[in-house]
Amino acid sequence: MEKLRVGVIGLSGRGYGQMKNIILPRDNVEVTAVCDLYEDRNERAAATVEEKSGKRPFVTTDYRELCSRSDVDVVVIASAWEGHIDQAICAMENKKYCAMEVGGAYSLHDCFRLVDTYEHTGMQCMMLENCCFGRRELMVLNMVRQGLFGSIVHCAGGYLHDLRGEITFGEEKRHYRLRNYMNRNCENYPTHELGPIAKVLNINRGNRMVSLTSTASCSRGLHEFIRGREDANKDLLNHQFVQGDIVNTVIKCAHGETIELTLDTTLPRYYSRGFTVRGTKGMYNEINDSIYIDGMHNEFHEKWKQQWGNASEFAEKYEHPIWDKFIHDGVRGGHGGIDWLEYDAFFGAIERGIDPPIDTYDTAAWMAITPLSEESISIGSAPVAIPDFTHGQWTHRAPEVEWDMAIL
Amino acid sequence: MEKLRVGVIGLSGRGYGQMKNIILPRDNVEVTAVCDLYEDRNERAAATVEEKSGKRPFVTTDYRELCSRSDVDVVVIASAWEGHIDQAICAMENKKYCAMEVGGAYSLHDCFRLVDTYEHTGMQCMMLENCCFGRRELMVLNMVRQGLFGSIVHCAGGYLHDLRGEITFGEEKRHYRLRNYMNRNCENYPTHELGPIAKVLNINRGNRMVSLTSTASCSRGLHEFIRGREDANKDLLNHQFVQGDIVNTVIKCAHGETIELTLDTTLPRYYSRGFTVRGTKGMYNEINDSIYIDGMHNEFHEKWKQQWGNASEFAEKYEHPIWDKFIHDGVRGGHGGIDWLEYDAFFGAIERGIDPPIDTYDTAAWMAITPLSEESISIGSAPVAIPDFTHGQWTHRAPEVEWDMAIL
Repeated sequence: MEKLRVGVIGLSGRGYGQMKNIILPRDNVEVTAVCDLYEDRNERAAATVEEKSGKRPFVTTDYRELCSRSDVDVVVIASAWEGHIDQAICAMENKKYCAMEVGGAYSLHDCFRLVDTYEHTGMQCMMLENCCFGRRELMVLNMVRQGLFGSIVHCAGGYLHDLRGEITFGEEKRHYRLRNYMNRNCENYPTHELGPIAKVLNINRGNRMVSLTSTASCSRGLHEFIRGREDANKDLLNHQFVQGDIVNTVIKCAHGETIELTLDTTLPRYYSRGFTVRGTKGMYNEINDSIYIDGMHNEFHEKWKQQWGNASEFAEKYEHPIWDKFIHDGVRGGHGGIDWLEYDAFFGAIERGIDPPIDTYDTAAWMAITPLSEESISIGSAPVAIPDFTHGQWTHRAPEVEWDMAIL
Repeated sequence: MEKLRVGVIGLSGRGYGQMKNIILPRDNVEVTAVCDLYEDRNERAAATVEEKSGKRPFVTTDYRELCSRSDVDVVVIASAWEGHIDQAICAMENKKYCAMEVGGAYSLHDCFRLVDTYEHTGMQCMMLENCCFGRRELMVLNMVRQGLFGSIVHCAGGYLHDLRGEITFGEEKRHYRLRNYMNRNCENYPTHELGPIAKVLNINRGNRMVSLTSTASCSRGLHEFIRGREDANKDLLNHQFVQGDIVNTVIKCAHGETIELTLDTTLPRYYSRGFTVRGTKGMYNEINDSIYIDGMHNEFHEKWKQQWGNASEFAEKYEHPIWDKFIHDGVRGGHGGIDWLEYDAFFGAIERGIDPPIDTYDTAAWMAITPLSEESISIGSAPVAIPDFTHGQWTHRAPEVEWDMAIL
């Protein structure tokens, strides 16, 4: 089989790192084109590709050039959030396989444009939501499917990551997050737990998200952080950041299930994704890595301040086959291995000629939460409706029992 | 000093237990009257009082009789939720000191009636929110006041307690919770963490709650629980419970702080109150009993799935004086001691001639969250305004630096 020829758009920290550590090491893949607005990033990327493969890739600052090249089969988008959908549409219209890094949309219209493009080109756009491949996320999904948690009623999670340094000083002060935190107030990064939650709740496959309310706290964290740093950018000191420190979004699904998402990135904290699954037979909670099953743990239910951490006891029986194999073969790649797995899934689906495990309807629905939360926050946390991107297909598309198994 | 003479309204499990274990053992207090709708509960209570004190208390099924007695100084209300406010008003109009067990209101109007009664009689109504006296809650409050968490931006918590058995089978099938879960959909029990949170955020003393949205999940837990029980009440099997399994309520405060409350009582789970405090300098999270302070724990912030449990390391320096003394004197009473402490506070305030640490404005504001959440849920999670019960006094009443210290 011929190698898949990949063009990468966006060669900052994330894009460059993924290209170097996750894409280039694969024997079935080669990087034939790179694109970034900054020449220095392009050169660094091109040099790395040449060092690995012996061949210098095509270099451009114009993503449309990269998307239209005949020596590119696959386009990977790791640029700033604002460009994601336009770049994906361009790739798809050029009949390229397409994967897009994590981010939210800026309007519902853009989400619909993405779906329209998939429907008239037949080319999918997979969001590279690596957390869908998390070890615990997949184990819990496995347990959900085997009925251990019963009927799922509520899930929660969030992006709970102290980004104060990255936002204000990261990427040599060119980080695109900064302009978003300065000007917008929304759930700007919903997919890290929404992705795994959407898979648990069969969103777009028997279920869908119907409405949401979103509430942002005041914004104090970045200002105090900058004020306390001697090396702070003095301009930033006088800026009123619009983005609230904590954003709580509550989503209602078609069958009454609810999802609670939290954005928590500008106050000091330990990292977590807070993945929580609540069902009629049991629960999982990532914050204390605990599982509670009705009939198994009831004697502990009154124990106050119980420190659980018992999830690992379930791994032997319920570890997802993807992770069994990964551990056996040797875990590799960033973020504890999930970056490697998501590209296994993306490239694997292309090679097998099947839809990716995160398809365009998923990508659009998850990205839509950002502009919808922005709307709700701007109108006093009023509820807003979440559209159906699937033209009603969600009512009869089968739950993905096998999406993750298909790519093993 | 003469003994305080207490009348207790409501002698079911909670009321009887508190009377026997928390009130009767005190030398400065005696129980002179008991009241319950059920004769058997009255008799059990009267017998217990007589056994302890040698004197049989006055017994009645009519709370108005109890409230008007000249040999009653203090009225403690532990009856079903629906009667709390009417009973409190009756006690206060009879110039009795008044304490009321935990519960939510059924209308905003009732909350205003309670406040009006306080203002024209001068008699306070203290909600017996025992969680305000929790060991960790008080330690964290102590740390907040000493500035360790910086400016507080967001708090979270909830009543996270599997009550399926209690609701359907408890109290010989007379538990008042059942009729509430059958008929209403709301945040029916907000105060266990709202109380401590309100103290952290100085609600009614420099701050206030301004608006909220509330969202309820579908209701599945009770039905599945009953279906799976051979001894289930067959009538209940056919009943559609109205109360959603998980209710998420997000409250906005006057200075932009937000509060996230969760009601989670009809699905299997371990007990927790999820007390969370997020500030510009640090955080506390009860679910994994962890404290994270900027400058102290930053090397750990990228550690995934970090199991913390380090809060006890801070106890030596920051344990609240109330708990230092309690541990020294010997922790006693139910719920790990917080029941004992709340009555220390209630009776102590009366003896010192000062306002109770939870005053009528607090009681009204916290209870109001229930009908307001009911409203929001009934209109699709639309935001609803939270009224000011203090006629604007909240803007100049000083934060309670000393409320808890005053009762030591």
